[in-house]
Amino acid sequence: MIAARKRTVAVLGATGTVGQRFVSLLAEHPWFELTTLTTSERNAGKRYADAAHWHLSEPIPERARDITLTPTTDDLDAELCFSALPHEAAVEWEAGLAKTGHHVFSNVKTHRMDGDVPLVIAEVNPEHLDALRVQRKRRGWSGSIVANGNCSAIGFSLATAPLHRAYGIERALVTTLQALSGAGYPGVASLDGLDNVVPFIREEEEKLVEESRKFLGGWDGSRFAAAAFEMSASCNRVAVRDGHTEIIALTLRGSPSLLDVTATLRGFRGKPQELGLPTAPRCPIVVREEPDRPQPVLDRDVERGMAVTVGRIREDEVLGVKFVALSHNTIRGAAGASVLNAELAVAEKFV
Amino acid sequence: MIAARKRTVAVLGATGTVGQRFVSLLAEHPWFELTTLTTSERNAGKRYADAAHWHLSEPIPERARDITLTPTTDDLDAELCFSALPHEAAVEWEAGLAKTGHHVFSNVKTHRMDGDVPLVIAEVNPEHLDALRVQRKRRGWSGSIVANGNCSAIGFSLATAPLHRAYGIERALVTTLQALSGAGYPGVASLDGLDNVVPFIREEEEKLVEESRKFLGGWDGSRFAAAAFEMSASCNRVAVRDGHTEIIALTLRGSPSLLDVTATLRGFRGKPQELGLPTAPRCPIVVREEPDRPQPVLDRDVERGMAVTVGRIREDEVLGVKFVALSHNTIRGAAGASVLNAELAVAEKFV
Amino acid sequence: MIAARKRTVAVLGATGTVGQRFVSLLAEHPWFELTTLTTSERNAGKRYADAAHWHLSEPIPERARDITLTPTTDDLDAELCFSALPHEAAVEWEAGLAKTGHHVFSNVKTHRMDGDVPLVIAEVNPEHLDALRVQRKRRGWSGSIVANGNCSAIGFSLATAPLHRAYGIERALVTTLQALSGAGYPGVASLDGLDNVVPFIREEEEKLVEESRKFLGGWDGSRFAAAAFEMSASCNRVAVRDGHTEIIALTLRGSPSLLDVTATLRGFRGKPQELGLPTAPRCPIVVREEPDRPQPVLDRDVERGMAVTVGRIREDEVLGVKFVALSHNTIRGAAGASVLNAELAVAEKFV
Amino acid sequence: MIAARKRTVAVLGATGTVGQRFVSLLAEHPWFELTTLTTSERNAGKRYADAAHWHLSEPIPERARDITLTPTTDDLDAELCFSALPHEAAVEWEAGLAKTGHHVFSNVKTHRMDGDVPLVIAEVNPEHLDALRVQRKRRGWSGSIVANGNCSAIGFSLATAPLHRAYGIERALVTTLQALSGAGYPGVASLDGLDNVVPFIREEEEKLVEESRKFLGGWDGSRFAAAAFEMSASCNRVAVRDGHTEIIALTLRGSPSLLDVTATLRGFRGKPQELGLPTAPRCPIVVREEPDRPQPVLDRDVERGMAVTVGRIREDEVLGVKFVALSHNTIRGAAGASVLNAELAVAEKFV
Repeated sequence: MIAARKRTVAVLGATGTVGQRFVSLLAEHPWFELTTLTTSERNAGKRYADAAHWHLSEPIPERARDITLTPTTDDLDAELCFSALPHEAAVEWEAGLAKTGHHVFSNVKTHRMDGDVPLVIAEVNPEHLDALRVQRKRRGWSGSIVANGNCSAIGFSLATAPLHRAYGIERALVTTLQALSGAGYPGVASLDGLDNVVPFIREEEEKLVEESRKFLGGWDGSRFAAAAFEMSASCNRVAVRDGHTEIIALTLRGSPSLLDVTATLRGFRGKPQELGLPTAPRCPIVVREEPDRPQPVLDRDVERGMAVTVGRIREDEVLGVKFVALSHNTIRGAAGASVLNAELAVAEKFV
Repeated sequence: MIAARKRTVAVLGATGTVGQRFVSLLAEHPWFELTTLTTSERNAGKRYADAAHWHLSEPIPERARDITLTPTTDDLDAELCFSALPHEAAVEWEAGLAKTGHHVFSNVKTHRMDGDVPLVIAEVNPEHLDALRVQRKRRGWSGSIVANGNCSAIGFSLATAPLHRAYGIERALVTTLQALSGAGYPGVASLDGLDNVVPFIREEEEKLVEESRKFLGGWDGSRFAAAAFEMSASCNRVAVRDGHTEIIALTLRGSPSLLDVTATLRGFRGKPQELGLPTAPRCPIVVREEPDRPQPVLDRDVERGMAVTVGRIREDEVLGVKFVALSHNTIRGAAGASVLNAELAVAEKFV
Repeated sequence: MIAARKRTVAVLGATGTVGQRFVSLLAEHPWFELTTLTTSERNAGKRYADAAHWHLSEPIPERARDITLTPTTDDLDAELCFSALPHEAAVEWEAGLAKTGHHVFSNVKTHRMDGDVPLVIAEVNPEHLDALRVQRKRRGWSGSIVANGNCSAIGFSLATAPLHRAYGIERALVTTLQALSGAGYPGVASLDGLDNVVPFIREEEEKLVEESRKFLGGWDGSRFAAAAFEMSASCNRVAVRDGHTEIIALTLRGSPSLLDVTATLRGFRGKPQELGLPTAPRCPIVVREEPDRPQPVLDRDVERGMAVTVGRIREDEVLGVKFVALSHNTIRGAAGASVLNAELAVAEKFV
Repeated sequence: MIAARKRTVAVLGATGTVGQRFVSLLAEHPWFELTTLTTSERNAGKRYADAAHWHLSEPIPERARDITLTPTTDDLDAELCFSALPHEAAVEWEAGLAKTGHHVFSNVKTHRMDGDVPLVIAEVNPEHLDALRVQRKRRGWSGSIVANGNCSAIGFSLATAPLHRAYGIERALVTTLQALSGAGYPGVASLDGLDNVVPFIREEEEKLVEESRKFLGGWDGSRFAAAAFEMSASCNRVAVRDGHTEIIALTLRGSPSLLDVTATLRGFRGKPQELGLPTAPRCPIVVREEPDRPQPVLDRDVERGMAVTVGRIREDEVLGVKFVALSHNTIRGAAGASVLNAELAVAEKFV
């Protein structure tokens, strides 16, 4: 699929960890033209290459190096805005930008649970974009806000969506082993990260549960209905750079066989695959048979970081079925997912 | 409590990771006199200090440095034998040693699930030692075998035993984040251990489930009865040197309040505390209130590595209650627990 | 530059760490056609994808997955052989393969210091390939052996070659901080690698010194002359997956200014760049100005792992000038360098 | 040796990484009574156990838990003050405290290079304490300031002092591999610390060189004379929790044999050993013969962290002799060294 014309895009909060991923994904994007990078007052006016403390192993894209950083304002000259703002700045700017006609693809918690803001994983609940109609009408906006989820919620929801759709989840229990990059930069102190596990990530368990229920829930044309299953989450930080590992146990309606579960996951495709969106993985869920996979170092970069890798599908004596899911937290779980949402919105003519 | 006389003791397989912990714990033991260290044929005849590739941060005990390593044989000159043998060697030697009058405290899977071998955590099921009567009679042994459990099973069972005793566990789901030292030396390759999680440990989930059911089950004077609750385990290797973190969710009979669960764990004491055994922690379960504890670097060495630290006791929407338990896998989960078993057996006059 | 026809190539010892890098680099190579993968007797007959315990973050190339592994023999059906054999196997097979007409590009120490075997870094001493004439004549071979150096020696020699050529090195002192992957798989035990430095790598300091002197030395048409400078090396293993960091201090003839040193490094180009060889980096030495670079996570993948990154060029009160050099040890320091050597040999019609 | 009476002591900046080490070392000190813990305004009034984000593996000492934190002032009720203040606070308070009669043992750079402040390693240059006479007279203080050095400078100077004393150092080149704890908490971001080396520590190389020259230099009764040797330092941060590894090459006058160098290091004892000071290691330099020692995980805790471990003593083709030295950076390199300085000052009746 080819977009009719290139849209101008901005990255809000471009110097942080997620902002850098956006810059990396958008610099050579076939549909989008990266024109604007915003930052805090302190860094405004600097060249991007000078102000960003670059953390990615690939170099800063040539196209971005010389862009002059500007403060975030609500009259930005860009059609689409990818927001990697911190919560306080998002409260200040995202709604104003939407009001002035910008289409904001947000990566922060601020508006995720709003009743008229679609919280979207492009393969999982593309129909939630229809809420933008309501959002614009109710709020009088010419622009819009589409929310991207928390990294651990995206990993969980993408890995379980095909099963929820095919059978229905009754109960879900997930234990996460989350990467250090999820905390941003400087984020986790190395004295906490080395030779250690921290069994707590502030607000993470709450987000993981409530966002998953929204992702896997419905939209009836006027309201979101959260998926109704029981869910428990325990979130842990481990000494991994990128890639969240999630140990998932589920009770599924009808107790499908392991073969059926495996086939359902492996066969899953969504709108992005159907439409051939530029950032879409060919296969959003990669199922592996080896007993010791997925592993962060081996699987996080599969499909340019846009697939979830699932392994160890087996019976769970307590809940029914269990498996391990791994996703790249700053690509599939953040910037990549948000870019894919934007591509979907463009393709479906929502923006 | 003071033992009447010092018993002579051997460490079988003294050069490995667990063997080194035994040597460290036994060199200055008030009740035991370390006289014999065994090893493979290849190293026999060498000084211990020359043959052991020492891994512990404390130095090799003076008393052990100059002991000449011998091969394992069934006529060892030691009353008690602490076995850190690999499985094949344990098959070859442990029963023979018991037959010739030695009291073997084993740390390998070989005899753990035998119908007449007590698998003991000194605080949890000291009454299982009574099975030694049956064992000796049935097998015609003058000695005995007492088994120590797998490191992850000990952590789980010690942390949940007070709750099982007070309320009864109906269902248990545990996800482990296990330390590298659990795989011995050389064990996990650093390319698998750095920046990574391996979501699989061979045979570990099976051992964790079946041994926990034996620990928490009964002994009726002639047979062991496994505890009957449903249990599921998922075992993962993480980049931690020592200290297994276990994320535990339970359904307890009668749905006790979090306050009651906390008080039950905190108030737990067992025979070793009652008898004042030399290796006993004052408090076998340390409960912490901070939201981000336990952590391996901060909590694994509590009570000289002999306590389990529990934190994050909270409601679990799916199963009822959940918490995090941390134990030092080569001390509380291996050598230290076995030494404590031996002290208990001596104090109770089983050996 | 385009080769006239594709040469068939084999990877000897294809399942190990360096073998995997070869497979990854050769599967889609424009000049070479990967036809043969060899292994130990134990794995012969298996599919490559089944036998290789794959460690790289990119997936196994499609083209290699289904190749059936064969034992190494001297009648292999391949024109070029990239050898990642261990020393003992290299002793057994490399000379025989050369005798039977194969062009062997070896990565092991076996023949590196032989008087008629060129030890080559394509940018540094391409003229040493002329030794192949002597080698074939003296040994009666229709094939040949070209040796690739030790990873730390390649990093040092590539980073210092422009300075040796421009000024002459009088004294060199290098301290290395070497990556875990340099020890292969399983290689370094994670208990040695985590939270630790091992200040010793067997034979490494000797190789680093003697190979650097051969790289930077001369070939007079019949004999190699080692570069004559004084050199000291201290080699350490650190907790880094890939990328050797080398802290280098030099005394240069004529005491050039830091500006001159910087310009000399930055301006360096060699035969591979001149010929536009497929695996050549555009720029073999990348000089960075930031005070805290190079760093393994940020710089090892520059130029697809084929460049050395140099930073912190400054005065050294004792020796004259010092700087930090970083190179990807399994690409620039092993498989990539060897493939580049083969490209050079083809382009220059030595093979 | 036993002190006549207990001195009251304060820890200034007690909640940071070094402050915690002081608290741990002083809580049960035979000569000192810990009465006062100071902190920033923000934490003043809190219990120590509540305000300190405790990082050490041993628990907070009972004696310190309930001490109420106070702001730093110059009328503190304590005879000795161990200062772990940051530089700005040290500028503000240390001189004032000395003026009002306190004996300040400082761990920050602030006064280290002052012409009348002794910068002391108790085994290396105890005679520099005589500068306190001049200091008090010139400044009109009833108290005093004794400075403790930078962690890497202490490791280098203690390991080389016996050689400088016995032979004289002409040239020294040191490359450090420094632990994460040296940067305090939160200090190094885990994204910089994991799978990485950072070849730069701000101001560290300058401190290492100039402080080592002061430690190894002289005091003539009125002025310090820096040791005159040429010295070069390259400082790197590696993924180690505690323990700085230093790779040292020296040119010594008279080119002593390796046997003599080894004997000189091994036989070294200083005033603290002679006086039997409570915190003194029995042996300040431990020499190991194994080819792969010292290592942080195995050697940093030797002599309760107060010894330097030296290994790999061998010839250096460029400078003469080289070896590896390891020291615990927050004990021997910070708090422990400062406590030992205080013990020495008390024993020698300087305070």
